Order: sequence, then structure tokens, then C-alpha cells
Amino acid sequence: MNSFQFQNPTQIVFGPGTVSKLGELVQPYGRNVLLVYGSGSIKRTGLYDQVIAQLNAIGARMYELPDVEPNPRLSTVHKGIELARAHSIDLILAVGGGSVIDAAKAIAVGVPYEGDVWDFCIRKAVIREGLPLGTVLTLAATGSEMNGNSVITNWETQQKRAFGSRFAYPRFSILDPELTYTVPASHTVNGAVDIMSHVFEQYFSLTANTPLQERFCEGILQTVIENVELALADPQHADARANLLWAGTMALNGIIGVGVQQDWASHGIEHEISAIYDIPHGAGLSIVFPNWMKYVYQERIDRFVQYAVRVWGVDPSGKTPEETALAGIERTRAFFTRIGAQATLAEFGIGADKLERMAEEAVRFGPLGSFKKLERDDVLRILQMSL
Amino acid sequence: MNSFQFQNPTQIVFGPGTVSKLGELVQPYGRNVLLVYGSGSIKRTGLYDQVIAQLNAIGARMYELPDVEPNPRLSTVHKGIELARAHSIDLILAVGGGSVIDAAKAIAVGVPYEGDVWDFCIRKAVIREGLPLGTVLTLAATGSEMNGNSVITNWETQQKRAFGSRFAYPRFSILDPELTYTVPASHTVNGAVDIMSHVFEQYFSLTANTPLQERFCEGILQTVIENVELALADPQHADARANLLWAGTMALNGIIGVGVQQDWASHGIEHEISAIYDIPHGAGLSIVFPNWMKYVYQERIDRFVQYAVRVWGVDPSGKTPEETALAGIERTRAFFTRIGAQATLAEFGIGADKLERMAEEAVRFGPLGSFKKLERDDVLRILQMSL
Repeated sequence: MNSFQFQNPTQIVFGPGTVSKLGELVQPYGRNVLLVYGSGSIKRTGLYDQVIAQLNAIGARMYELPDVEPNPRLSTVHKGIELARAHSIDLILAVGGGSVIDAAKAIAVGVPYEGDVWDFCIRKAVIREGLPLGTVLTLAATGSEMNGNSVITNWETQQKRAFGSRFAYPRFSILDPELTYTVPASHTVNGAVDIMSHVFEQYFSLTANTPLQERFCEGILQTVIENVELALADPQHADARANLLWAGTMALNGIIGVGVQQDWASHGIEHEISAIYDIPHGAGLSIVFPNWMKYVYQERIDRFVQYAVRVWGVDPSGKTPEETALAGIERTRAFFTRIGAQATLAEFGIGADKLERMAEEAVRFGPLGSFKKLERDDVLRILQMSL
Repeated sequence: MNSFQFQNPTQIVFGPGTVSKLGELVQPYGRNVLLVYGSGSIKRTGLYDQVIAQLNAIGARMYELPDVEPNPRLSTVHKGIELARAHSIDLILAVGGGSVIDAAKAIAVGVPYEGDVWDFCIRKAVIREGLPLGTVLTLAATGSEMNGNSVITNWETQQKRAFGSRFAYPRFSILDPELTYTVPASHTVNGAVDIMSHVFEQYFSLTANTPLQERFCEGILQTVIENVELALADPQHADARANLLWAGTMALNGIIGVGVQQDWASHGIEHEISAIYDIPHGAGLSIVFPNWMKYVYQERIDRFVQYAVRVWGVDPSGKTPEETALAGIERTRAFFTRIGAQATLAEFGIGADKLERMAEEAVRFGPLGSFKKLERDDVLRILQMSL
């Protein structure tokens, strides 16, 4: 186990009907609230009205930034920053999934910064403060509701970049499983893939002596595997929705990754795909991750054997470690396919023409990952496997 | 899964040699530091000198409360409160195990309170503020380094009582596995039992649909089981010490118990024993817990079957659920015995004469626990099984 520091101050309010606590959670921060949301599904489901009613009841003055994109764009963040400055916003309130929360984080840290918030994404500047941020989560997926990370897409330069800061942690996050009953099946699927991918990035590590972290990872993976099909069969399955929601938060709130050298190469590769083609993040991960696994498993075959045995129940008897490891990877792909996630770029009509450019852009700041350090040609090979 | 709120703001600094970060962690809180510690073992090991050097380097003014007892006493807490008030203390710094930290917490919340800090233990008053508290942990055991709970013994009334408050969370805790190399074997054993007991109190629950919480619990138990004998055989086993230390923190920082109706009857029973006989907390738990298990397992036999199978690897084939459950309980007792933990009150020379009084005191505020609600006679039966 490596040395580490851990601190996560976000207040989680979890359970059916917890939207009713929004007013009392917002009140301490002041009256001017910037409401950030996405495509308008929160209006169709009635969540928008619930939020407005809660904010009205405490006498809040509301301003709105709607239409945040699935891969949230820098231009949208700029709009939010202007709005927040113009109206002396006290609290940013994100109501939606990970994209909405990520955009809200960028707005929160962008408001007090004199330069362009994109500076934080390209490491030109360090975040030193941020407006308070609260969230009402509507999708089990990114874990953004309980961490300080954000991913923003600069559409002009076709770059998708992440930043992280202790000033970007939500002060509070409402996790109401009922709000996830109405998400489209494809979102449930992509969310599940996203959660599992976050675990993979922390689980497939070269760091020795992390038995507790590994078991936590395996527990999250098993919980997602056991619950996603229940939620797909019955979108109002209260138990499955609750388990997926909490699994998503635990997958990326820092706990399972303490003291572990993490990888994140697959995310790096996926970001290059969706920066150009704007495909859903979870779909990109579903395509890339099993191919990454096949490309790297020999770096530490015992971890892939453990994964196959503990997570998928592969029986290792009579198998070589290689056969067991590969069986686990096959089970991963088969599971993704069974729940309806994509396996190839071709399913999005994406061909080979921009793979080299993606591979180059992916390693612009150096090789990707740590489990196996991926150079340009490694990334290209994984992209070719993904066609 | 029940609805829940979760927030844990403690900053963890984990790793070998992290005592060297003490100065920079203390500095933001001010110059006047009250150093709280125990029997003087920190002087023998050189930790005391390291701490003093760190505090000197930042120009801190130090005051000291030594000799905190293994079951920390109210009278000692009173002394600490007086010291802190007399010297306008800015930060309480606990250097030691759970008892020292618990005493420091009581001092921290007692200083700004006009009445007697014991009021918090008997629910006569609510904690509304507290001095900042930092800790340097020397023993994997109580989890007090990352929660807001404290257990104090009032020796005059022979009562051991707990309080919990968000104002009692340490601001920071240094978890340096090397500091645990020198603890006596009995402390390592009692610490391991304590950690496992904390998990039991959250794992044996009637709450339905908590698959992730259960797997986290099982992961901690397995980690302790796999590592404690390594640490006993080689007290400087870096990996085992690191794993035990982190397992202890994760067992009681709130994460594994979210949305779960917890039990805590065994702790209630143990507190009555050690309030009168002043035996080590972990030893008391080692005696009581397997007897509690035998007394209650039929309330939810499937959970005890799961425990036996997943944690102890009991093969359930050809066994009734009852046989499997009992095998898990037997494995627990055998493990405690193998690592050198006590199994009977007789080993401490404790006889039957005060059992009735303990049983009555244990249920003074109502029945104990939730897995099975224990009345006076239930507690008495478990105590008799423990003779």
C-alpha cells in the first residue's frame, strides 16, 4: 500500500424522497442560486417543479443554466460563469447526472478565477477557491456527486480534459434512488459500465499489498453486476436502484483507491473518442475497456486471475492462469453485451480514419496509464481492436 | 437499505513516516497545543520526542495531559478541560490509541460547555461546538481516529458511556503503521478483536438489501483475519501493520454502516463489564461476542450462514443452515483463541456475583441492540455464558 492522504467532506443525503430536504440544505449558503441542468428531462419527470418549490419555500432567488450537454462543453461553462457573476450567485445547484455536475463544478471554480477556466483543465493554473456547490443526482454513473473531479470538453479544439480540486467537492449531494427510475435504459446501461470502469481503473494496479481496497472494488463490481439487470427489467426496482446509486458513489469517492497507483488509461482513450465523436462516455468505455484488458493482462496476470475468480466466479481448476484471466475478460465483454452496451466503434459508425490522430492526442502529455504505460502505438492498437 | 445521511470530514494522512507532517498539520490551528497521551509508552518509543520536535519547529506552546487510562476516566477528562481553559488551547492533540483519542474528544467538546461534560454521556445536554482536535494514532483498534464518537468511564458511578457528535471528529489523523510496530502483542490482539467487533455490530443486522455494505464488512473481516497473525509473528511486518491500521479505520468511520440498522448490544454488555472490572475493551468483546452470536443467530440465520461461508470459507454443502451458522461462530471463537484473546470472564478472575447488577445497568435506558432486542434476562444469560 502506498502512502496517501484522504479527505472527502461532501455531505450525502441518501434515500427515497430526500429531495424534500433540498430547501434546508440550500438555506445556509445564501439566497442567490444558480440552477444548472440538462436536456429538460427534469421538467418531464416533475423534478424541476419539486426543486423550484423547495427553493421558493426558502425565498431563494433563482437563475438558470439549462441545456448542459452529455459531454459538457466549455462554452456552456462560460455561460454559467457569466450568469453567476452577473447575479452574485451564492450557491451553484446541479440537478442531473455527472455531466451537469461536472459543468457546475467548472462554473463553481471558474467564477472567482480571473483567467479562463480552461486553464485548470490544461494545468496552466491551480484552483485556489470555488463557490459552494450542491447537487441533486438523477443517474447512477459518474460518482461526481462525491468527489472534486470534473471533465470538460472544449469543442473548438476537440479536447476533453479533466481537473480535480478540493474546492470542487459538492458541499452536499442528494441521492434519491426514485429519481433514477425514469432514466432511459441506455443511460442505466452506460451508467453501470461507467461505475464498473471506475473500479477497474483502481483495481488493475501494480501496487502491492492492498487487500482491503481490492475487496471493496470486488464488492462494488459484484453489486453492479447483480443489480443492473434487475433495474433494466423493472426500472422502478427500488432495491436495485438504491444499490446502483450507492455503488456509483462509492466507486469514485476516493475510498477504494487510497494507497493505490491508479491507471485511467482507458478513460484517457475514451476521452479522445468522445471528444471527436461525442458518443456517450459509458458506451465508449464499454467498447474500450475489455480491449484494454486483453492488451495489458499479462503485466500482472494474478490480478486478472483474482478478478475472474472473485468477481465472475470463474473456476480456475484445470485452467492455466492465462486461461482463467482471459475467461474473466470474456465474461466482462459478454456481460456488457448482454445488458446492451456497445462492443465496437462500428456500432456508432466510427471508422479507422481518425484513430492515429486520437492516439497522438491521447499521449500528448506523456504515456497513458500505469498498469502498463501506453505509448502512441499501444493506444493505436487498442483503438484498432475496438473498431 | 434505509435512508441515511453521511459526512466524514476527517483528513487522513496515512503511511510510514507521516509523523513528519505533524507540524504543517498543526500550524493552521494556532499556537497553543494541549498534548494528550497515555502511559508513557510514547516516551519509550521516541514518538514523544518526534512530536515535540515537530511542535517546536512551528513555534507551538505546548501543555500536557499525560496518563490517560486504557478506559479513559471522566476525572482525567476534567483535568484536561481545566488545562485547556487555563491556557487558551487552540488545538487538542491526541497521541495514542483509542482511549487517548476518546479522552481528547471529550476535552474538545467539554471546554466550550458550561456544564459538566458527563452531561453529554447521559444525554442531559447536546454538543454544540468543540475545540479543533488532531490525532497521531498508535494502535489499530477503535476507529476513533476517523469518527465523532467517544467512550468515557465515570469511575465514581462505575458507568461507561458513549457520546457522538459532528463536533468531535478529528480535523486530521496521522496513521503511521510504523508507530504500531512496538505495541505489545496483547494490544495487537485486542485491537484486532475490537475491529472485528465493530464490523459485527454493523454486519449482523435485520436491514434488507445492503449487499455492498455486507461485502465491505466481509472484506474488512477477511483482511483482519489474514493479517493479525502476520503482525503477531513479526511485529514489524510492514504490510500486515498497514492493513490492520486501515482496516481499523474503515471499520468505524461510518462507511460500512450506512443505511443499516446497527446492533451494538455486545458493546453495551462489554461496557458494563469493563466499567466494573476495568478489563481491556477488546478482551471483553472477545469473551462476549461469540456468546452473543450463539444467543441470537436464529433471528436471521441466513446472515450467519453468509458470514460462515464468505468470511470463514465454511463449506455449506451437506450442512443445515443451522450447522453452517454454528460452524461460523465456532470459527470465530477458535480464531480469537488462536490469536491469544480471552474466552471467559474467569480468565480475569471475574465470577458470577455482579452479573445481575451488570445486566440491570445494561438495560437501564431500554433493551440493548436491534438484531435481537435484549432485555435484562437476555443480557444476564449472555453474561452467564461468558463466565
